[in-house]
Amino acid sequence: MDIIDELRIYRERDIPYSRVLSSMCTTPHPVALEAHRMFVETNLGDPGIFVGTTELERKVIEMLGSLLNHPKAAGYISSGGTEANIQGIRAARNLKRVKNPNIVIPKSAHFSFEKIGDILGVEIRRAALDESYRVDTAEVERMVDENTVAIVGIAGTTELGQVDDIEELGRIARDMNVFLHVDAAFGGLVLPFMDERIPFDFGVEGVSSITVDPHKMGMATIPAGGILFRGEEFLRALEVETPYLTSKYQYTLTGTRPGTGVASTYAVLKHLGFEGMKEIVERCLRNTRILVEEMEGIGFEPVIRPIMNVVSFHAENAEKIKDELYRRRWVISTIRVPKAVRMVIMPHVTEEIIKEFISELRQVVRVV
Amino acid sequence: MDIIDELRIYRERDIPYSRVLSSMCTTPHPVALEAHRMFVETNLGDPGIFVGTTELERKVIEMLGSLLNHPKAAGYISSGGTEANIQGIRAARNLKRVKNPNIVIPKSAHFSFEKIGDILGVEIRRAALDESYRVDTAEVERMVDENTVAIVGIAGTTELGQVDDIEELGRIARDMNVFLHVDAAFGGLVLPFMDERIPFDFGVEGVSSITVDPHKMGMATIPAGGILFRGEEFLRALEVETPYLTSKYQYTLTGTRPGTGVASTYAVLKHLGFEGMKEIVERCLRNTRILVEEMEGIGFEPVIRPIMNVVSFHAENAEKIKDELYRRRWVISTIRVPKAVRMVIMPHVTEEIIKEFISELRQVVRVV
Repeated sequence: MDIIDELRIYRERDIPYSRVLSSMCTTPHPVALEAHRMFVETNLGDPGIFVGTTELERKVIEMLGSLLNHPKAAGYISSGGTEANIQGIRAARNLKRVKNPNIVIPKSAHFSFEKIGDILGVEIRRAALDESYRVDTAEVERMVDENTVAIVGIAGTTELGQVDDIEELGRIARDMNVFLHVDAAFGGLVLPFMDERIPFDFGVEGVSSITVDPHKMGMATIPAGGILFRGEEFLRALEVETPYLTSKYQYTLTGTRPGTGVASTYAVLKHLGFEGMKEIVERCLRNTRILVEEMEGIGFEPVIRPIMNVVSFHAENAEKIKDELYRRRWVISTIRVPKAVRMVIMPHVTEEIIKEFISELRQVVRVV
Repeated sequence: MDIIDELRIYRERDIPYSRVLSSMCTTPHPVALEAHRMFVETNLGDPGIFVGTTELERKVIEMLGSLLNHPKAAGYISSGGTEANIQGIRAARNLKRVKNPNIVIPKSAHFSFEKIGDILGVEIRRAALDESYRVDTAEVERMVDENTVAIVGIAGTTELGQVDDIEELGRIARDMNVFLHVDAAFGGLVLPFMDERIPFDFGVEGVSSITVDPHKMGMATIPAGGILFRGEEFLRALEVETPYLTSKYQYTLTGTRPGTGVASTYAVLKHLGFEGMKEIVERCLRNTRILVEEMEGIGFEPVIRPIMNVVSFHAENAEKIKDELYRRRWVISTIRVPKAVRMVIMPHVTEEIIKEFISELRQVVRVV
């Protein structure tokens, strides 16, 4: 059999995005695909060869920095949010050498922080959430001690799309002279385009670094994460020497790394502009409201009034609902506390898809 | 200006691979590009959605395992060799919890091991090389102590393409009951196709894990690294729990990760087969011999008789030669000890390119 036919068989076993309401990834924007194709051979690990692609990365970081209220931010396009979070915490750890480092993060932080703790040898202290599922900042403040290298706030929690009180975390960071990392992997390309202005970025004093993933709401191709620091000195804290390469130092976690994420991020942001991104975010928020109405119509109640296009609904039998939907090739996810079903209304989730999904869900709730 | 035209301007500032003799990456095989295109939307971070792509990854690991003498190897396709090396050492560290872990690596090990030391909090002990630039195994043995979590051997050093005595390292690993990681990022897809059989893989008792990068000699698209372990228990040592994903645990370093590396690796290996890969490796080795002859004709002497398609030549003014070539848009690299110019004869480096390069170099040596 021809190799391409064989690959097609595997690819067809994947569930298409049109049936996926659980992912923070989406079908890339057509202009992202075109840009990706043009840069498919590029390797940002060798900037002396890929001079143009490297220049483009600087432009992308400047664009993301501008969106996050700090055009002079230092940073790079990473393999995704996990690398970005690792590097944020690693910089903090390296700048404050203590024997038994710890970080204070919300209970709602992404599971990748467990990896980070293991990888970097940093103790993870999880602060409780308040009734609106934002981190209890008083508890954060109590948990900080002389071995705390960073505190973390989330702008767009994975489970609920909630945003921590970054201003209050910023105050704690300044008062206690500790690094503040904001995980805005999801929210970083939603919040700047919302009418309601929720402070979360470098505009907040005390924020040291921000994770923002263009391959999520930025509709860039995978892999395209982003890590931005308030200043160059944080990148310096990550550097190792690189003999035999065209650069002298490397601050990224990976060595060889694709330029496709850079090109596709640039293409989407430049092509759509602020207004185009705003339209897409607004459409996602509108579709989220439609989903909430429909879900309420079947008797589901949202855990919180959605802040952005992530929403969870109380459901004692959440796992069963998810499994039965999966059997019918619809993908949602669940959360454990409180027991709930969870959906993300990405740009690929249209009103039509929501209607189809709801009609399937109506059948599912009758059988589970 | 149209966004695509704008991107083209950046892309044209990159130096094309036809002028690059310094990189271990290359132009992807046409079948790799086709496979990449088909899988560009896929995300292996969510295996319940990308069921087919996940299956394909298992097949790819089995193929790579077979090539490395252990079809039952456990592993995955990573963001590249650095992630693979991190994960090999991290597994070793996690399996042998000691207070002040160290690893013993050759002086010739890739600079990414410096990152690994910093990231994982592992002391790096660099063992000297013998006169053939292989690690001095007696020194390795002396450096191992009760806090040593791993020793490392290189199969295809970045600077010279040399292969350490993996059999002797295997004996040390067994005798001293320590993990042995082999960095075969480059050599792993060269050595199996050479007439001369140099032992370096799971066929050697004591080898615990191997890094092999399909995006180097495997002609897959970036990013496609590989980490293979002798058994599942090593992957288990890397796991964290993953709520709200379609999988329960995750052992990779990154979260979201592209299926393109898996698809392109599969396509190339399956399309070319063992015989096709052998032909490409033989062509690279033949071109390396041509380069050596031509270089000797200008008066350059190789640091060692090349083992594979990486070769360095003594040159006191190596940096100047490199810079002057770069000014003329030819890219080579240099090494520091001994002072030398370095070339990698990847599949994109044809005999014709070598002739053009040599004729330029003849002019360069006259002016520097």
